Amino acid sequence: MSALITLTTDFGLRGNYSGALKGAILSVCPQAQIVEITHEIGPQDIEEGVYVTSCAWPYYLPGAVHLAVVDPGVGTDRKAIAIRSPQGVFIGPDNGLLSACLPPQSRPAAEGAITLPPTFEAFHLVEPKYFRAEVSHTFHGRDLFGPVAGHVASGVPLEALGPALAEVHALPRTTATQDGGAINGSILHIDTYGNLVTNIPGEWLPAGPISVDIAGARAPGLGRTYGEASALFALVTSDGWLAVALPNSSAAAKLAASRRDPVRVTRA
Amino acid sequence: MSALITLTTDFGLRGNYSGALKGAILSVCPQAQIVEITHEIGPQDIEEGVYVTSCAWPYYLPGAVHLAVVDPGVGTDRKAIAIRSPQGVFIGPDNGLLSACLPPQSRPAAEGAITLPPTFEAFHLVEPKYFRAEVSHTFHGRDLFGPVAGHVASGVPLEALGPALAEVHALPRTTATQDGGAINGSILHIDTYGNLVTNIPGEWLPAGPISVDIAGARAPGLGRTYGEASALFALVTSDGWLAVALPNSSAAAKLAASRRDPVRVTRA
Amino acid sequence: MSALITLTTDFGLRGNYSGALKGAILSVCPQAQIVEITHEIGPQDIEEGVYVTSCAWPYYLPGAVHLAVVDPGVGTDRKAIAIRSPQGVFIGPDNGLLSACLPPQSRPAAEGAITLPPTFEAFHLVEPKYFRAEVSHTFHGRDLFGPVAGHVASGVPLEALGPALAEVHALPRTTATQDGGAINGSILHIDTYGNLVTNIPGEWLPAGPISVDIAGARAPGLGRTYGEASALFALVTSDGWLAVALPNSSAAAKLAASRRDPVRVTRA
Repeated sequence: MSALITLTTDFGLRGNYSGALKGAILSVCPQAQIVEITHEIGPQDIEEGVYVTSCAWPYYLPGAVHLAVVDPGVGTDRKAIAIRSPQGVFIGPDNGLLSACLPPQSRPAAEGAITLPPTFEAFHLVEPKYFRAEVSHTFHGRDLFGPVAGHVASGVPLEALGPALAEVHALPRTTATQDGGAINGSILHIDTYGNLVTNIPGEWLPAGPISVDIAGARAPGLGRTYGEASALFALVTSDGWLAVALPNSSAAAKLAASRRDPVRVTRA
Repeated sequence: MSALITLTTDFGLRGNYSGALKGAILSVCPQAQIVEITHEIGPQDIEEGVYVTSCAWPYYLPGAVHLAVVDPGVGTDRKAIAIRSPQGVFIGPDNGLLSACLPPQSRPAAEGAITLPPTFEAFHLVEPKYFRAEVSHTFHGRDLFGPVAGHVASGVPLEALGPALAEVHALPRTTATQDGGAINGSILHIDTYGNLVTNIPGEWLPAGPISVDIAGARAPGLGRTYGEASALFALVTSDGWLAVALPNSSAAAKLAASRRDPVRVTRA
Repeated sequence: MSALITLTTDFGLRGNYSGALKGAILSVCPQAQIVEITHEIGPQDIEEGVYVTSCAWPYYLPGAVHLAVVDPGVGTDRKAIAIRSPQGVFIGPDNGLLSACLPPQSRPAAEGAITLPPTFEAFHLVEPKYFRAEVSHTFHGRDLFGPVAGHVASGVPLEALGPALAEVHALPRTTATQDGGAINGSILHIDTYGNLVTNIPGEWLPAGPISVDIAGARAPGLGRTYGEASALFALVTSDGWLAVALPNSSAAAKLAASRRDPVRVTRA
């Protein structure tokens, strides 16, 4: 048996990091089918890592191994963990990144330790025989997480990797808040088209007409497709989040918008 | 049977779009061999998509499935199509992008609907059983084109995907024009080295010495290799287009040149 | 038999070059397992190509084929070569790039022709039957190196590709110098986090406390991990080179540092 392994990291594409990671995986499991989600998560941006991972893994078959590494605490005492969910295995640092594997209702209200849902199990990766012979202080992707992913893809059960954990560190699903009829959130991700994806869940939007204030501009109403709009407009993305877009152009560039800029939704 | 699938999109590499697309394909056809041409086509730039796709697919074996998605009209009434050519299957929106599969002489003089050459067949992708169960309005790459590509790679005949089409939308091979002894064109693509690739076919060049005016500079004569030149020079690329380059440097940066800037070739 | 082929090039990810290369390989060897190290080596930057390749290939199993193309002299009389080492096969232009396959002690003191170590063999790629039928003057990656890599992955012995070579062109391991108690080097690579990787080997550092002067700033002492530091600090990377980093931020941006900027290490 040999599984598919997806990779989501902040290693970038310009240097040797993603290439060394892939070699470390394939040295353990030469038959692994490696699929790269992205290596372009913002450096050390755990929140963006959660967003991207959670929008990608649901499109893979159950049983896949999802390796995610955004790891500012590498070499400190943050744990290395693996989580088995009904949908697959998730491997990475215990810094909240693996929140991506949780159903929305299992995400905590505030960042911190949580007990996993009953059908999930977490393990502390401490068994060095599944690591590279030499583990650096600064590159656990290559020396620890990658080899572990290779072993899991080769059929090693998570129970062999270390003791079960009662709790893992998790991030809230969103830090947006509801305030009477209004919603206050922020820009979570800017996509390749310059669309401004917010941390406001689509299902929070009221039924009637709305206005979205973002980066000094106002997007009226809710659109359905990019091709039908002719000016700044709001829509719910295919991943379920409120976004603001400019048809055939970059809302990010036009509004000089940045990640974490505030967003406010009101009834129109 | 399981085919190779190439991907050419404007989805970018920073987020979840290409990763979700690959998952959607592999969920349908886990054995597909996915090869990425690029995800960095300029946003909504169909013309660049045609250029890059047409310069890449000829290097693949016949029978490959070439998926191309640059789709500003996603969710509107533009058709989703597949074309079977003697060289492979091409899948994407019917907005001119799949012109990339046509021989140069079959490209129209002006953008519009054309009848395909006799050895080509087009099909309208309307059979929902080959899509994801839920199809969004904004991400047909993941929800429609990717799954269809996976089914085709798994052996589903194009005839099962929908009715045959008499016409498809196509772009001209070039919008450059010949004007007496001169040729007027524009910059079509700027490559990673800063070389300025024009929309002037190499075979249009006159036999004798030429000058190329571009972005306020003049490149004299035609060179053969980058290593032999010492200043701005023109050459015919290995893909057959006139280009202007600066040895070991970026002509684009030096000349502050942009896509669509005019280019004029005259006899020297 | 079919081997893994790694790719390290300066072709970039925006256009058709890496996609055409992969097609050319797979047309020769459809079963090849292609793994991309990077296509984002700085344009024509052979030294960075050596650095990245040498930090990536050691993580692959022996027997892999490592294709590296950073080739400013393409189409001139620089040789195309393949080197067989105990660790694998390395294919590329004979411009120093394949120095990456050599053990540190076999790298020359200054750039130039060297005799390979006894367990290494080099071959001159001159046998056109292993190239594409038509070889351009400007894209040997696609037309020559890629097809050769595909044939090698398919089992063609290097001896069939052309005559053995007594010498190859090589770059020194470093151009840093030791000057009494001080070391003078330069920035070799800036990684995705903005960490400044220098050309000073970690084992050159004196045992006691040091200071590192770089881009107008001074990094005191040597740290061990990114997570434990709170200001500009020096460390030895997991690849064995001295680097300067800013925790959770970009030292390159903060110091406005560039490749080749000087670095000086002194005892504190």
